[in-house]
Amino acid sequence: MNARLNIGVIGLGRLGRVYAEDLARYVPAANLVAVADTSANVAERFAKEYGVPKWYESHRDLLHDSEVAAVAVITPTSTHKDVVVEAANRGKAIFCEKPISLSIAEAKQMLDTTQRTGVFLQMGFQRRFDAGYIDAKKKIEAGIIGTPVLISLISRDPFAPPLEFCNPKASGGLIVDMGIHDFDLARMFVGEVANVYSTGGALAYPEMKSIGDIDNAAVNLVFQNGALGVVQLSRNAVFGYDIRTEIWGTKGSLQIGYFRHTPVLVMTKDGISHDVVPHFMQRFDKAYLAQIRDFVDNVLKGAEPSISGEDALAALQISLAATQSLKENQPVTVRMRSEVNTSN
Amino acid sequence: MNARLNIGVIGLGRLGRVYAEDLARYVPAANLVAVADTSANVAERFAKEYGVPKWYESHRDLLHDSEVAAVAVITPTSTHKDVVVEAANRGKAIFCEKPISLSIAEAKQMLDTTQRTGVFLQMGFQRRFDAGYIDAKKKIEAGIIGTPVLISLISRDPFAPPLEFCNPKASGGLIVDMGIHDFDLARMFVGEVANVYSTGGALAYPEMKSIGDIDNAAVNLVFQNGALGVVQLSRNAVFGYDIRTEIWGTKGSLQIGYFRHTPVLVMTKDGISHDVVPHFMQRFDKAYLAQIRDFVDNVLKGAEPSISGEDALAALQISLAATQSLKENQPVTVRMRSEVNTSN
Amino acid sequence: MNARLNIGVIGLGRLGRVYAEDLARYVPAANLVAVADTSANVAERFAKEYGVPKWYESHRDLLHDSEVAAVAVITPTSTHKDVVVEAANRGKAIFCEKPISLSIAEAKQMLDTTQRTGVFLQMGFQRRFDAGYIDAKKKIEAGIIGTPVLISLISRDPFAPPLEFCNPKASGGLIVDMGIHDFDLARMFVGEVANVYSTGGALAYPEMKSIGDIDNAAVNLVFQNGALGVVQLSRNAVFGYDIRTEIWGTKGSLQIGYFRHTPVLVMTKDGISHDVVPHFMQRFDKAYLAQIRDFVDNVLKGAEPSISGEDALAALQISLAATQSLKENQPVTVRMRSEVNTSN
Amino acid sequence: MNARLNIGVIGLGRLGRVYAEDLARYVPAANLVAVADTSANVAERFAKEYGVPKWYESHRDLLHDSEVAAVAVITPTSTHKDVVVEAANRGKAIFCEKPISLSIAEAKQMLDTTQRTGVFLQMGFQRRFDAGYIDAKKKIEAGIIGTPVLISLISRDPFAPPLEFCNPKASGGLIVDMGIHDFDLARMFVGEVANVYSTGGALAYPEMKSIGDIDNAAVNLVFQNGALGVVQLSRNAVFGYDIRTEIWGTKGSLQIGYFRHTPVLVMTKDGISHDVVPHFMQRFDKAYLAQIRDFVDNVLKGAEPSISGEDALAALQISLAATQSLKENQPVTVRMRSEVNTSN
Repeated sequence: MNARLNIGVIGLGRLGRVYAEDLARYVPAANLVAVADTSANVAERFAKEYGVPKWYESHRDLLHDSEVAAVAVITPTSTHKDVVVEAANRGKAIFCEKPISLSIAEAKQMLDTTQRTGVFLQMGFQRRFDAGYIDAKKKIEAGIIGTPVLISLISRDPFAPPLEFCNPKASGGLIVDMGIHDFDLARMFVGEVANVYSTGGALAYPEMKSIGDIDNAAVNLVFQNGALGVVQLSRNAVFGYDIRTEIWGTKGSLQIGYFRHTPVLVMTKDGISHDVVPHFMQRFDKAYLAQIRDFVDNVLKGAEPSISGEDALAALQISLAATQSLKENQPVTVRMRSEVNTSN
Repeated sequence: MNARLNIGVIGLGRLGRVYAEDLARYVPAANLVAVADTSANVAERFAKEYGVPKWYESHRDLLHDSEVAAVAVITPTSTHKDVVVEAANRGKAIFCEKPISLSIAEAKQMLDTTQRTGVFLQMGFQRRFDAGYIDAKKKIEAGIIGTPVLISLISRDPFAPPLEFCNPKASGGLIVDMGIHDFDLARMFVGEVANVYSTGGALAYPEMKSIGDIDNAAVNLVFQNGALGVVQLSRNAVFGYDIRTEIWGTKGSLQIGYFRHTPVLVMTKDGISHDVVPHFMQRFDKAYLAQIRDFVDNVLKGAEPSISGEDALAALQISLAATQSLKENQPVTVRMRSEVNTSN
Repeated sequence: MNARLNIGVIGLGRLGRVYAEDLARYVPAANLVAVADTSANVAERFAKEYGVPKWYESHRDLLHDSEVAAVAVITPTSTHKDVVVEAANRGKAIFCEKPISLSIAEAKQMLDTTQRTGVFLQMGFQRRFDAGYIDAKKKIEAGIIGTPVLISLISRDPFAPPLEFCNPKASGGLIVDMGIHDFDLARMFVGEVANVYSTGGALAYPEMKSIGDIDNAAVNLVFQNGALGVVQLSRNAVFGYDIRTEIWGTKGSLQIGYFRHTPVLVMTKDGISHDVVPHFMQRFDKAYLAQIRDFVDNVLKGAEPSISGEDALAALQISLAATQSLKENQPVTVRMRSEVNTSN
Repeated sequence: MNARLNIGVIGLGRLGRVYAEDLARYVPAANLVAVADTSANVAERFAKEYGVPKWYESHRDLLHDSEVAAVAVITPTSTHKDVVVEAANRGKAIFCEKPISLSIAEAKQMLDTTQRTGVFLQMGFQRRFDAGYIDAKKKIEAGIIGTPVLISLISRDPFAPPLEFCNPKASGGLIVDMGIHDFDLARMFVGEVANVYSTGGALAYPEMKSIGDIDNAAVNLVFQNGALGVVQLSRNAVFGYDIRTEIWGTKGSLQIGYFRHTPVLVMTKDGISHDVVPHFMQRFDKAYLAQIRDFVDNVLKGAEPSISGEDALAALQISLAATQSLKENQPVTVRMRSEVNTSN
């Protein structure tokens, strides 16, 4: 007999709806029993459209629903701590979208609670579930490129979000909001980061200065093993969504990434042209589905989380150190958790 | 209220299982109520795994199931006529995988029956539902390349099927089995075909001669509007699955197709390399899903079929004429349906 | 001591000037001692600009110049026979641009004369000297793709020449004029051609009908060894110059060709675009130089010609058979030279 | 009448021979009248092979040759100052290969001397003469990508030079030796650099530590106009030579660079692969020729140098600042010449 996991989704924003729809339709091992959104309307409409039996305005009510065995937390980052801590105290298995928090203290509190309660916590970094990154990881582990010595990571959005959505107090700012994906990949491919140095500016959208954020950044990494990293972040890849990673080793190199969405090439007197990947949902749609399936499977099998809270904390530490470096115009040492513990 | 279409799948071979799984999980507007396969075991196992309420050994029993409003016919081509005629007589809406038949007389009988009974018949040519082909079609209709004057169509399989599976009596032979997709695209992009000329041989797998089939063919087309076509078919794209279409117009050209499956580039002393599209399921998985969704939507909305039985007949006529040309080593005129009617 | 070859160039049209400039400046082993052009002005101006000591209006005068040891014949095709025969009778080593002639009888007369006089004759098919084709040939000989079973050859010009320049009486028509390069490559990569079948039309430039020529053609080849060939010829690759060859073997495949001229990619809201190879001089400039150097070296070393008159005759025979097939709408058997001898 | 420039080449190492051969054969406006090399044998052999009338062991003798109007200085960097100053004092027009010097004081002395004597000085940065970079520059000036906000520059060599050739005392170390090209391009595309920060290590060839050099570096740039730059340098692109530049603007982006040398694609069961650009001579051979032609033309026409000594000094200042940043692990402000003057 195949047990199914009774799961609830908290937060039905753009990404929350993606996860909820995936869980409702495309994850046979999951049983989406409830959704919650601070807009009761949104929750009700989604529930009716997708045949979800229960909907809630308050995440608290969902967390008190004893039928719910696991939750996917896709709420604004500022609420992650409260929701995750409460979910842990209610004994729910937890999937939490990145970033874990904008505060190391909060993140630590979340990890301490899940550790104490023994609940399952898996973090969301969907790129790790993309076929390209999975294949690259396997090839590196097979020794095809020798020892990695330099990783170059590029994340470029096709446009800046509306000013009200990218207030750095809520988003953490460009380096946290976009860079955390790259810092997570950097750790996955190369190891722990020792030092960071950042430059940046509001260059394409000067109005971003008014909210204290930037639209372009370059972050240098030095890993504990001596390897180097270069992270480029931008909001003005006006042609489309550009995510690329290159890993250079002693015996060879790997590139992951591409610019094309459909395999159509147009050839006219104006030259040869093709389309692009429009945005992250087009690039990573399968990865989001694979990720939430993986969470469901891990909970059902009692396996370890594929991406732990410690992973999320480490990526946050790098993000915050890189943000600090930008402000101070100085290299910043990344403190590891134990050091963090000591220093708090 | 959203009505759902009660549908049954007849035939659970490799492709039948794909459609059945899509219908069970990924087509919310469909309700997969029954499956049938000549191996009762296969039908039962699938039904239990996917929660399908009913399963049958005989397609006849499924067609007599009054709960079934529509059927997807994914059986061997030689049985299409019997199944489709009976389904039409039972008043079921019908989705039938290509090719409609290997016999023009049979195909005509199928069309006559569906016409007489007024049932809905939609044929399967999944490439028409691929994002690349859809985009190309739109661009051509928008006039970007002017008037098409030459179309080049390439279909290459990574290997030949086992001899027992490609007996030309069952498959129609290479030109029908593989080429019918390209002939269908040729009609979609350029128009009706007037003449064909074929060359071919059992060149990479000489053992195919023993069953009277070939593994490579080149078919020239002349369209009624004077445009030219070149179709290349092969079983020995040993590196992977290679489907490409190029359309050359008076003002520009379009290419559809690519060789890469994942966006990973490996760079070592041996050069730069990347992977390929392994086989048709990897290339067209989304297209199969889009196609069966389209069928379900059309039935529910009472819309016209996206690909009609007449379309399927026309592609068959080209395929058979091209096969005849190979035998006779002469150009062959493609007879249109009305001419066929007259001549039979 | 390094002897240098005293050479004269006959014909200073577009391509003649390319060869003459190469010989004057970039072939140290050659000494360009004379040029001839039916326009004395052109000859004189070129000679003065490039420091060539002698210039002639009549090729006959150049051929009587005893200082001239070798000639490059880059005149209109219709004059090849007269010039080459006379050059052979004057004992000059001869480089002759393709096509050797438009008439098999003339070509035979040329070969007979050079054979009788024992002069060195090397034909021009510059693609054989392109780095891509050279590399492909080596890889095939090394067995990388096994036995070739199908060759696909594409030649597309960005525009049709002015009507007065493409009169098929002078050019041989599209299939001879453009296709002869592909037929030569087909022989080089796969072997002798047994049968051809052609389709074609004046589709993009209907005015070409007025001179009895076409602008698009598709030619199917069957080789004596059973392999297949597909040749596509077009005058309406309006975006640029498109030369591609694909060779499909039992163990793998090779592609030669590309669309890009400079390595610049432009990415804007309109998509991603790049430039193209504008025309044959941009694609094959190095090949023309390598070819004329090879001729000079072969003469100086007493080596065999890299491309013989027999090669040129064979390519002509295929071209004429393909042209005949177009007129008759029938497959045509390609007669080999010995057969030709018999039948004349 | 076309005057030709009597030129001498000083230094016949690998690159010196390239320039000398280009001048001897492929620059009609130049007359290579003399070569000099500290190995008299090398000079004599080259002169005889290429028909150069005079050869010298000492550059001083060449500079005293009154027939010599211009010199190309392709000697080791450490000798640039002495040779250029003496050439200036002898009134010769000077082409000097990059880097101008490893010392800002020396470079200033060179500029002061050429300024005082009024001789023509043009510096060598061949990438500026590559068709790709020229095209990109034109497109940016035409406004296609709006205002540049970030430039990413990659230089990767396929292997490290022998330890004895990359002693940083002679080469300046990785950041000067390789990076100076990228710093020059950065100035050309974006403007003057304000700050630099570098990380690096001897990661792929640990033996480089023994000579005090590194094999990988990442250098962040902040331009005076606020734009950002990222420079990646590496000696372990083991597959080939990888030079890429990306310029990201407010309205679009440009990429320059590619991995392929010949247009041949190999497709076998191992996947799809192609070759690479082996080394800088294959990538930039035409650029070296275009550059030395440009020098000759500018001298003959009395035009301004395309790349001035000030340009060379600015690139050196960035290189040295970036090298200093690596040592200090701190961002370093790049001092402009006037500031340099003040501070010396």
